Amino acid sequence: MTSAAGVPGSPPAGRAKLADVAALAGVSVGTASKALSGAGRMRPETRQRVLDAVEALGFRPNQHAQSLHTGRSWTVGLMTTDGIGRFSTPVLLGAEDALGAGKISVLLCDTRGDAIREQHHLRNLMDRRVDGIIVTGRRTDPRPPLTGITGLESVPVVYALSPSTDAADTSVVTDDRGGAQLAVEHLLSTGRTRVAHVTGPEHHAAARDRARHAVGHLCAAGLSPSTGRVHFGEWSEAWGRRAADAVLRTAPDTDAFFCGNDQIARGVTDALRERGVSVPEDIAVIGYDNWDTMALASRPPLTTIDMNLAEIGRVAALQLLRAIDDADATPGVHTVPCRLVVREST
Amino acid sequence: MTSAAGVPGSPPAGRAKLADVAALAGVSVGTASKALSGAGRMRPETRQRVLDAVEALGFRPNQHAQSLHTGRSWTVGLMTTDGIGRFSTPVLLGAEDALGAGKISVLLCDTRGDAIREQHHLRNLMDRRVDGIIVTGRRTDPRPPLTGITGLESVPVVYALSPSTDAADTSVVTDDRGGAQLAVEHLLSTGRTRVAHVTGPEHHAAARDRARHAVGHLCAAGLSPSTGRVHFGEWSEAWGRRAADAVLRTAPDTDAFFCGNDQIARGVTDALRERGVSVPEDIAVIGYDNWDTMALASRPPLTTIDMNLAEIGRVAALQLLRAIDDADATPGVHTVPCRLVVREST
Repeated sequence: MTSAAGVPGSPPAGRAKLADVAALAGVSVGTASKALSGAGRMRPETRQRVLDAVEALGFRPNQHAQSLHTGRSWTVGLMTTDGIGRFSTPVLLGAEDALGAGKISVLLCDTRGDAIREQHHLRNLMDRRVDGIIVTGRRTDPRPPLTGITGLESVPVVYALSPSTDAADTSVVTDDRGGAQLAVEHLLSTGRTRVAHVTGPEHHAAARDRARHAVGHLCAAGLSPSTGRVHFGEWSEAWGRRAADAVLRTAPDTDAFFCGNDQIARGVTDALRERGVSVPEDIAVIGYDNWDTMALASRPPLTTIDMNLAEIGRVAALQLLRAIDDADATPGVHTVPCRLVVREST
Repeated sequence: MTSAAGVPGSPPAGRAKLADVAALAGVSVGTASKALSGAGRMRPETRQRVLDAVEALGFRPNQHAQSLHTGRSWTVGLMTTDGIGRFSTPVLLGAEDALGAGKISVLLCDTRGDAIREQHHLRNLMDRRVDGIIVTGRRTDPRPPLTGITGLESVPVVYALSPSTDAADTSVVTDDRGGAQLAVEHLLSTGRTRVAHVTGPEHHAAARDRARHAVGHLCAAGLSPSTGRVHFGEWSEAWGRRAADAVLRTAPDTDAFFCGNDQIARGVTDALRERGVSVPEDIAVIGYDNWDTMALASRPPLTTIDMNLAEIGRVAALQLLRAIDDADATPGVHTVPCRLVVREST
């Protein structure tokens, strides 16, 4: 099975070479090459003869040879700083979907958030003359732009989910403002007015931003958080359970919980059920992420906000393709809207 | 930012070309090329002069040019049939880790389990002359080998997690027999003798194999499942809750649950807690997968079996590198052992 692979230079068995195509078409190898690359002028009949020969022989051009004369490698680097992948995986698959549909291939690099690995991968991507790079990570906090590699300035880079700190770069991010608004407005529309907000660590942008916008939208409706403040903690069910107890002690008239992620929301619903509080009759609960494992296993299943992570990946890929073609590339921050997923918890 | 990328053929700014190296070393471009590829004979001093010039100019060879004369692309295709990625992601990252450490890059292809996408990606990988392909999926059920593309027979392929149905292929799989044995022996070692096995759908190999081996190890110890049979169902918490109730109705003296995955185990612990049965004092519960979100959020945290998925990816990558180098490649099935992770549920 590995025989041919062991012999440098030998093409895989059964592959027609450009010379075979040229011979069959009755033209020179140079003409055949021009006909395929679309470069240079030639009579349409000639080009057609070459294309017919390609068809007849099932010839597939060697990408490496093509790359040398088009100056394009038709590859894009996809760098993730996320070893775990719960957030970057859908972004990555969305990008792969948008790129892989065409002839562009995706070079995967996982930096594990390690600067040395990032440099190693970047150097490798530059050696391969990638047409562009998409950088994604697990958090929504801005990250410093890629740097430190010669020639990088001439390669388009798009940051997905984790935006670049450089406003001149192209970043595709989630809409935490819109997500918080969808959640708050949904709760208000179901007649809730005493809303508690329980979320993750205050040093995470995702927690700070969602909290700020949640409070903002409550104020716009003439309300404020049921306990007068936001409850920052961890992205965990255990924190959700502790926070639910704390909130009901200080503000027993709370009629809704807006949680910063689905794990916290699940912890809240468990704590409420175990206190004999029924969801959504007595208290409504809404989560964030639409992480099916959490949202669907929760009792009752969670109403939640979906960030459309795969769409963030797709938009990042399309922005990168624009930048590569130099056609109406639009640097700056692009925001992908969230959507409300209504289930039984509200 | 995208200017140079828009001009075909123009190398990224600030890059030294081979001609610059040759000029500085005072040799021909051909000699410089030979010095770098290690091909052909030349005086050591000459080769050294070229290497010094490379050093001085920070020259990095163009991989595409190199590929044309070495016949190797130094790229490997990584195909996943898993759009969700909970199982294939760690395998994929393990492989990327093993390959990316060297100069080999990973081309990511997600087929979404779609035959047409698989053919499209395969054709693309062949056009890029990948040195080899790793195929991974979400399930442990055997899959038909890659096929239908000219030249594929000369490219080494390794199947990870989802083995090939062709015994002559190289597959790296998890050790369900060993995993079931670890679980059962751990329960017996803690004095449990009336063990119930609750698992996923019988048409999944992972459910069937773990069940068969669990029963086998119980019999070897002179025991049998507490209810006399295996409980096949879904890979869900809801099934775990329902199954726990059913088991305790028919076999109230059950003193341990071995669950086919962590979601089922979490459902079982929830059902037991809500019946006032204490885990592990009254009944021990052990899961499978060591999926931290499930195992750690469970009350109490779950003892479970870890399949070492990243290691499966690493071993697959090493097997592929062997096959590419044609050095002691060993086709057939390679099994990666599981490990027992003890927490509070046993």
